[in-house]
Amino acid sequence: MALADTRFSNRRRALAARCAAQRVDMMLVTDVTNVYYLTGLASSNAALLVGKDLSATLATDGRYATAAVQEAPDVELLIRRDVGPALLENVDGAYRVGFEAESVNYVQLQELARSAGDSVKLIPLSGEVEKLRAKKDFLELEALREVAGIGNRAWERLLESGVLAAGNTEKRVAAELEYFMRLEGSERTSFDTIVASGSNSAKPHHSAGERVLESGDLVTIDFGAHYRGYNSDMTRTVAIGEPSEQLQEIYRVVQEAHAAGIAASVAGQKAVDVDAASRSIIDAAGYGEYFTHSTGHGVGLEVHEAPSANTRSEEILAEGHTLTIEPGIYLPGVGGVRIEDTLVITAGRPEIITHGSTELQVL
Amino acid sequence: MALADTRFSNRRRALAARCAAQRVDMMLVTDVTNVYYLTGLASSNAALLVGKDLSATLATDGRYATAAVQEAPDVELLIRRDVGPALLENVDGAYRVGFEAESVNYVQLQELARSAGDSVKLIPLSGEVEKLRAKKDFLELEALREVAGIGNRAWERLLESGVLAAGNTEKRVAAELEYFMRLEGSERTSFDTIVASGSNSAKPHHSAGERVLESGDLVTIDFGAHYRGYNSDMTRTVAIGEPSEQLQEIYRVVQEAHAAGIAASVAGQKAVDVDAASRSIIDAAGYGEYFTHSTGHGVGLEVHEAPSANTRSEEILAEGHTLTIEPGIYLPGVGGVRIEDTLVITAGRPEIITHGSTELQVL
Repeated sequence: MALADTRFSNRRRALAARCAAQRVDMMLVTDVTNVYYLTGLASSNAALLVGKDLSATLATDGRYATAAVQEAPDVELLIRRDVGPALLENVDGAYRVGFEAESVNYVQLQELARSAGDSVKLIPLSGEVEKLRAKKDFLELEALREVAGIGNRAWERLLESGVLAAGNTEKRVAAELEYFMRLEGSERTSFDTIVASGSNSAKPHHSAGERVLESGDLVTIDFGAHYRGYNSDMTRTVAIGEPSEQLQEIYRVVQEAHAAGIAASVAGQKAVDVDAASRSIIDAAGYGEYFTHSTGHGVGLEVHEAPSANTRSEEILAEGHTLTIEPGIYLPGVGGVRIEDTLVITAGRPEIITHGSTELQVL
Repeated sequence: MALADTRFSNRRRALAARCAAQRVDMMLVTDVTNVYYLTGLASSNAALLVGKDLSATLATDGRYATAAVQEAPDVELLIRRDVGPALLENVDGAYRVGFEAESVNYVQLQELARSAGDSVKLIPLSGEVEKLRAKKDFLELEALREVAGIGNRAWERLLESGVLAAGNTEKRVAAELEYFMRLEGSERTSFDTIVASGSNSAKPHHSAGERVLESGDLVTIDFGAHYRGYNSDMTRTVAIGEPSEQLQEIYRVVQEAHAAGIAASVAGQKAVDVDAASRSIIDAAGYGEYFTHSTGHGVGLEVHEAPSANTRSEEILAEGHTLTIEPGIYLPGVGGVRIEDTLVITAGRPEIITHGSTELQVL
């Protein structure tokens, strides 16, 4: 408990320092994932006001009153349904108050403006807490290893189960994999499980449908567990019987691009260069136009978060960042390959927290 | 295909009629569930502009171009990443354009305002498409029966599986139930499965944790499937061995409140009176303060949608509405009961699409 408390108050201190940088007197946090990050309270209705003077007031409704007292004993507490307006009602004076511009809709903004005193100025801010969240602390890394482990063990069980075989539907494979994740401790999937077989594997955003696996198919499986607030994310592509020469070739290219992306993922490296490390291998092999998405993204309280590794990234990797490396090649009507691991960035070689061979497994 | 097309164009015609009622020339729909409802296109990045003259332009990005042409051949199509601004760029003149005030955040609103011509006036609107969605058509009701059927069969399988027994964790029960829903065709859960046992059953928002089921427990299980866009929602409370007199009593009260809510659910009835029908029975039994939530809500493309039956409801039930009836009693530290079915409202007795005995089952 004491350890957790320090963690949350440290995070609030870091946010208070951002107030000065953004020239605001306080920040209103309305994204509930960010409120969780800053207080430890998991609530579907909560907001937090953090001042540059390190003051912190948490608002949530009666359903979460007991949890709020337990999880966040060191902040002021306000029990109200209209959490954002409740926090601003007490702000009166010539203050500049930052708000999370992506988290507040038009109706909510009107309510905030009405609640704040006339001399209060609301300042739109973007990604302030998300920037802090990118760098994981020791306990977060432990949680991320734990949830990745759930995914790793479920993947092993899926391979051993024999379900990845001609005659089974994509949905059946998803059913078994999700069941194994549940049995290994997952609280829910971190996103809709993708099982994309045959020509469906050429669609990066296919989910899992009624198609029956056939011999010669590649099957791309992208899946994640959720445990105690944190998410996992991993992709493997396997073959049902011997795949064509062309599919084997794109597999080798993606495998090489994946290895190159991992090798480039070192603290101090530009994220755009990590993307380039993977992408250049696919480009050089002549498949550049078929790699239609980013190389990777951070994983934490959300399955997609900062940093991101794509052709427009401006971030620099740092120790404690997480990053997926997930290059892919998608040949429309033919098939596709994606291989994805989640890394923890260090000063040297990254720690790969998702496990499982990246060699082409022919089942 | 032809049938579906008519359905979507009929819905857009109904929305165009709302333009007149709201004194706007067109409405910009940015909520992607609403875009799906009005076009048949399932996309995570799409927007639709509907004019009072029945014109309709759909914007989505390249990933969904093929699907958009297939699903919505009768609307104009714009392939762009910034879907909302793209649609407003072409609007120039003294037009009043309604936007979905709850769906647009501060950043997006700035972008919309920049994209529209100077003489365009953006008008915030609330719940226009949601009001249309409340009344389900024939094909929607078929889809809702189908997804409810998945839940019904999974529930039967869970009861037969023997997993609902002392010694198993709540999470294990959730794992089996979700697996059965998957095997019966579900694409994902419609919300996080609740398995609340013993004293946890007194927490209406408990999910499914590590607690081990014990003899004497009540176990409340609230679950839903998702299939082809539509959701199911159902709750049962069972006993593991003989429960205490007190728990048996609150079960009987909730069972009676549930039956009364169903009996009151007739087209033309006020939703607030349906709530009162259930609530008055719990009040009369002396447990009013322990029924801490609404009696019910609509179910459709979202698991919670209009109408809602609570103490503040202003809606009148109509044929084709759906409504859950889910009274509960939660005794802190002791245990709780909730029984929930999903109904289709008709002119006479409602059709109950979730099945399964509401008698207390002692397992």
